[in-house]
Amino acid sequence: MSSTITEGARPDDARRHNRGAVLRRLHLDGPCTRAVLATEFGLNRSTIKAVVDGLADTGLVSERLPSRRSGAGRPSLLVVPNPQAALVLATDIRVDRVAMALFGLGGEILGRLSWRLRPGSASPRDVITRVLESAVVLASELSLPVVAAGVSIPGVVRQSDGLVREAPHLRWVDVPLGEQLSAGLQMPVTVANDAELGALAELTRGVARGVSDVVFVAGDIGVGGGVISSGKAMRGAGGYLGELGHMVVRPDGLECHCGCQGCWETEVGAAALCRALGLPLAIGRGELHAELRELADDPPTALARLSDYVGWLGLGLVNVVNLLAPQVVVLGDLFAALPEPALQVVATRVRERSVVSRAVGHTLVVRSALGRDAHLIGAAEAAFSPVLDSAAG
Amino acid sequence: MSSTITEGARPDDARRHNRGAVLRRLHLDGPCTRAVLATEFGLNRSTIKAVVDGLADTGLVSERLPSRRSGAGRPSLLVVPNPQAALVLATDIRVDRVAMALFGLGGEILGRLSWRLRPGSASPRDVITRVLESAVVLASELSLPVVAAGVSIPGVVRQSDGLVREAPHLRWVDVPLGEQLSAGLQMPVTVANDAELGALAELTRGVARGVSDVVFVAGDIGVGGGVISSGKAMRGAGGYLGELGHMVVRPDGLECHCGCQGCWETEVGAAALCRALGLPLAIGRGELHAELRELADDPPTALARLSDYVGWLGLGLVNVVNLLAPQVVVLGDLFAALPEPALQVVATRVRERSVVSRAVGHTLVVRSALGRDAHLIGAAEAAFSPVLDSAAG
Repeated sequence: MSSTITEGARPDDARRHNRGAVLRRLHLDGPCTRAVLATEFGLNRSTIKAVVDGLADTGLVSERLPSRRSGAGRPSLLVVPNPQAALVLATDIRVDRVAMALFGLGGEILGRLSWRLRPGSASPRDVITRVLESAVVLASELSLPVVAAGVSIPGVVRQSDGLVREAPHLRWVDVPLGEQLSAGLQMPVTVANDAELGALAELTRGVARGVSDVVFVAGDIGVGGGVISSGKAMRGAGGYLGELGHMVVRPDGLECHCGCQGCWETEVGAAALCRALGLPLAIGRGELHAELRELADDPPTALARLSDYVGWLGLGLVNVVNLLAPQVVVLGDLFAALPEPALQVVATRVRERSVVSRAVGHTLVVRSALGRDAHLIGAAEAAFSPVLDSAAG
Repeated sequence: MSSTITEGARPDDARRHNRGAVLRRLHLDGPCTRAVLATEFGLNRSTIKAVVDGLADTGLVSERLPSRRSGAGRPSLLVVPNPQAALVLATDIRVDRVAMALFGLGGEILGRLSWRLRPGSASPRDVITRVLESAVVLASELSLPVVAAGVSIPGVVRQSDGLVREAPHLRWVDVPLGEQLSAGLQMPVTVANDAELGALAELTRGVARGVSDVVFVAGDIGVGGGVISSGKAMRGAGGYLGELGHMVVRPDGLECHCGCQGCWETEVGAAALCRALGLPLAIGRGELHAELRELADDPPTALARLSDYVGWLGLGLVNVVNLLAPQVVVLGDLFAALPEPALQVVATRVRERSVVSRAVGHTLVVRSALGRDAHLIGAAEAAFSPVLDSAAG
């Protein structure tokens, strides 16, 4: 595939830049007419025509009539990204589940599968073997070549080679995940922290599109954060930035596996939510979500049962906003499944208590609309990014 | 002055780039020979000669014999930045003191003065008037023109125009400091948060030279942080990133002016240090530093009296490291004046308790070597930066 899309004479820099920008726009924001592209990019019609023709020649886009006609007269052709022109494989390794999906150019999911893991007993070898087998299954269903892969993992990852330094809830230490998957799949593999990929998903396809300073905070068994500052992912030394779950918020709280007491994760992770709701810690995600949906229909009970939990969630978010000054905080995973009145209390707490929220004219706290797919979408976009760059070449 | 240094024909981009890079290097790292410059920049001798000649023609550098001879033979000429060629004015507004200094190209302080403020009763108008008067005094002593100014302030500042949104310990709200000083001084004025400028100072002239991920944490009456990520200052929405002092570390702690309880600032700011040492809160900085120096000679007593204080300092730093993943944390102001054994305890706490410190192979916690001048140096470098760019033009 990569040979197909880099075929032909090497275009000059401006042409490559324009092709890349138009392709990225169609991939992320969907089909539109040439006229819209010309307006958005401030390019004249003949330049846009050349760019679109170039992308069409390599099969990356096609032009077709819109399915619904609007207004009178002859409708304009839409430039549509061709899903089959570039497929990426996304894998979301969680503590209790692995989900995989094939994404086509344009972001559509063309196939998916998932399986459960027994928390704490998933060896890297077993997971890697099953990911490789499942990749073959997914790809063969479509009979289309896959060009790159992205993997989300709840741990600290070395950016350069996808080494998982520490994924405490999986009990993985120094697992060469990127290297092994890339050897097995025979394609470039990008491995990244789940919250970092969640932030990327919100920025590209979620509620934080067009926002330059975003923190994505995902609560599951662990709690992690992905930080976008001035439109760019912040990584810190070794890519370890954003271990929000290990911010101590309650110095006399429960012991955390990290060696501290009262980490945010011990106060607002899945276990803490189960404690607050009087549910067994080993409860399945489905049942926990069902319980939360039920609570949403009964606001007074929801607020009463979640009062302490919401207090710790709010306190940690005040700290996050004061340290990182986002315009928007996106809550993912379990946090996004909390009943609306509980989230309202948290948002109000941040608005009233954070000096930074007051200074910037209020930091928004919103739930992710991507649901359980946020990490998967982020992994896909991380894999797409270099593909889009080279496709424009 | 700016007309002098942009005089002449407009050089092409490569030449401008080389001139700027060489000038910045001489400004930050001091005099060296052309041969050293050629090696450092990977340029041939004739290119370096042209660059140095160009800088010498506009009076920015001169070449002279080293004052000490090393080895036999004819000594090489040193390329030396000319301090008088570009002067900037730096102002450090603190809660209890204003310090001003004139910095020459190369970073030498050519003149300085300071005065005390009564905490909480310094009106913006009085401070601005005295800064303007003092600028005239400082500049007239040298009879040299000043080209730009930088101002450090303990508060949140809007980057675009230097509006001080909130400087709580000064009780300033929405003060158009940048606008008024720039009108009064008739030159470009850069206003920035004190901790952000402290970080810049450490990065350019302090212990964090060459480090890409740095957090500078300064403790005085308030506590603030400056964050450098991948070599760049992180600013967040509106430039408000790094309000580390308002991270809640002790939810049942003292009330903070921000509306929360147990902010890091209430646990480790100057007032907390005075409480720990049994000193009156209104004690002068000189006496407080004297007390700390005395404690340094008696480690067991220092550790006993500062035990709780050091615990909160360490806990906050563990959080800072887990969220921001710096390679180095630089402690400034009062934190830098703590007795060595107390700092050792803090550094060890971070090393042992922070998951991120463990992952990156240990985050260093070091004291600033710039002393009380860190903010002043940062303000000067913030002012120099555009001057160096235009000087290379």
